[in-house]
Amino acid sequence: MDRADAPVRGNRRQGDDFRARPPDAPARRAAAARLDRMTKPRGSLGRVEDVAVTLAGIAGACPPPLPEPAAVAVFAADHGVHAQGVTPWPQEVTAQMVANFLAGGAVVNAFARRLGVEVCVVDIGVATPLDPAPGLLSRRIAAGTADMTCGPALTRPQAQAAVEAGIEVARDLVAAGNRCLLTGDMGIANTTTAAALICAFTGATPAEATGRGTGIDDATLTHKTAVVTRALALHDPDPADPIGVLAAFGGLEHAGLAGFVLGAAELRVPVLLDGVSSGAAALVAAALAPHARAYCLAGHRSAEPGHRLALVHLELEPLLELGMRLGEGTGALLALPVVQAAAQALHDVATFDTAGVTVRADLDG
Amino acid sequence: MDRADAPVRGNRRQGDDFRARPPDAPARRAAAARLDRMTKPRGSLGRVEDVAVTLAGIAGACPPPLPEPAAVAVFAADHGVHAQGVTPWPQEVTAQMVANFLAGGAVVNAFARRLGVEVCVVDIGVATPLDPAPGLLSRRIAAGTADMTCGPALTRPQAQAAVEAGIEVARDLVAAGNRCLLTGDMGIANTTTAAALICAFTGATPAEATGRGTGIDDATLTHKTAVVTRALALHDPDPADPIGVLAAFGGLEHAGLAGFVLGAAELRVPVLLDGVSSGAAALVAAALAPHARAYCLAGHRSAEPGHRLALVHLELEPLLELGMRLGEGTGALLALPVVQAAAQALHDVATFDTAGVTVRADLDG
Repeated sequence: MDRADAPVRGNRRQGDDFRARPPDAPARRAAAARLDRMTKPRGSLGRVEDVAVTLAGIAGACPPPLPEPAAVAVFAADHGVHAQGVTPWPQEVTAQMVANFLAGGAVVNAFARRLGVEVCVVDIGVATPLDPAPGLLSRRIAAGTADMTCGPALTRPQAQAAVEAGIEVARDLVAAGNRCLLTGDMGIANTTTAAALICAFTGATPAEATGRGTGIDDATLTHKTAVVTRALALHDPDPADPIGVLAAFGGLEHAGLAGFVLGAAELRVPVLLDGVSSGAAALVAAALAPHARAYCLAGHRSAEPGHRLALVHLELEPLLELGMRLGEGTGALLALPVVQAAAQALHDVATFDTAGVTVRADLDG
Repeated sequence: MDRADAPVRGNRRQGDDFRARPPDAPARRAAAARLDRMTKPRGSLGRVEDVAVTLAGIAGACPPPLPEPAAVAVFAADHGVHAQGVTPWPQEVTAQMVANFLAGGAVVNAFARRLGVEVCVVDIGVATPLDPAPGLLSRRIAAGTADMTCGPALTRPQAQAAVEAGIEVARDLVAAGNRCLLTGDMGIANTTTAAALICAFTGATPAEATGRGTGIDDATLTHKTAVVTRALALHDPDPADPIGVLAAFGGLEHAGLAGFVLGAAELRVPVLLDGVSSGAAALVAAALAPHARAYCLAGHRSAEPGHRLALVHLELEPLLELGMRLGEGTGALLALPVVQAAAQALHDVATFDTAGVTVRADLDG
């Protein structure tokens, strides 16, 4: 299938549909100036100061609103490429883990409970039909994607609809009062899809971008890398056509998360990214609306090699690096207190003049 | 002054006074086994799993008690070596910042408020007399240390008393119900003292261990390094005599924090370490009681080069690395949610059998 007649390509100009304003420069400057007047050595909060400036720029205010309450949206979907044997986990585990999320038994639940964060599970395309349940948003676009090594994973309308569903989820969570959104994902085989997306947008090779996911052995990693290589060769993706890239590879959760980032950016709410699937989704969002990345904070860097490539491409520096590789939003959740503390510092900390603390001799006067 | 007649040396065997039991191996094994049965890929929480195992070993129970409520103790003191011009900050800033802590205006207050952590300020030797105030523990050993470049910073009894005061602070905070202790420090010029301590215990050179502290310029750094070199040459410290090392260099906050670590270890409560001064204090604690380090978690790695040396010597891997260099307990506070989340996961997360989630094919049966 060559580029000209691939069904996943089209003429629609996505740039007209998805917009994100640049962050607010005066609010960023005000935050930086306030940080320098606070009762601490200049720059002594390191990266936490960068987060504070970013939050001010996102909100267009200094101090920015506290990023609370927060909600984590876990987009769950299945992947046709599972049939290629890229993981030892059966596909039904996606639906079983959704049930575990809804029962409150997964790691994302434990972390979110601890931090007072709402968990919103979004069925954007789980293969197994799911019964309605409190906490489950049904936004099914398809019963999983088709196998990207045999043809397009999605139609263009499906890809577009999944992005739009993600935008709506973000809007709904902000309308419910949330002032910080966290990304999460669940989908057996979705690190294979993420690797293909990361190759498409960053130009990395499958060998660079493909990782062990849940912890596969060397032979499976070699096979998984070959599967990603085949999919890329089949679709020859054009990064300037992000909906086309999504249609080629999926996944529905990556498309939904891309929309989720765009929805947050549209509403000027910070979005805290989880792992490799969220990173791949943020690449899609940034391809659709370049300023979207300015609304993202990278919660952590996972053990998955493609995640590093995605973050470098997005020019996002992760807050945590704990060797995590679980997904679900767990890495974003652990970074949330750092983000909230950065905002709290801008709100609460006294300045040298108000606190009556002497400024160091060489900066005085 | 040679070693034989140095007044800071003595025959008392500190190993008899300060003890810490090894962590509990069966509880550690139980935690590791439970982590492997939880509904997540094995090892997928990375370093968070190590924290969970450590907490179980500290408490001697799996799951370990949740590390909450928590309290941060900010040990404040002054340093005679300030007279050598190692920092542009006037010495009175120590007392001014204590007042800021008590007024709730410092970064430690903002972060602690956010996380529901009690701030306990300990005057262990501030040069300026401080009025009594709620939240201020007066445990003054001296009005600051003497200049370590001219003679011993403390007498042996002062050093010993400061360690014992720190132990008492830990005991009091645990008696008040706290189940996680965090270290904090305030003392203008105390990174100079910390550098000397780190050289004494790790064998590092002053050039390796001395850093910019609050952000000094190149000329001041060169001078500060020379000051540390002179102090080391004067005292020729013996790391097997930790009270002697403390007496040689101070500081009172480092001695107090060393005791604080020992007190936490004695009560089997985890202690979350802040930056370079806390790292130097933990070296003292580990020299007094080798198992004490097993009760420590390194909250972060600061920008100060000596901190890295201390953590390597202690075999502690920091949880965060955000380029912070403020002290006060701020780096420990930002790591607390990770520690609490690790314990929460051991308590809450379902196992494959209870959640009805299929185990991956290659690990099944």
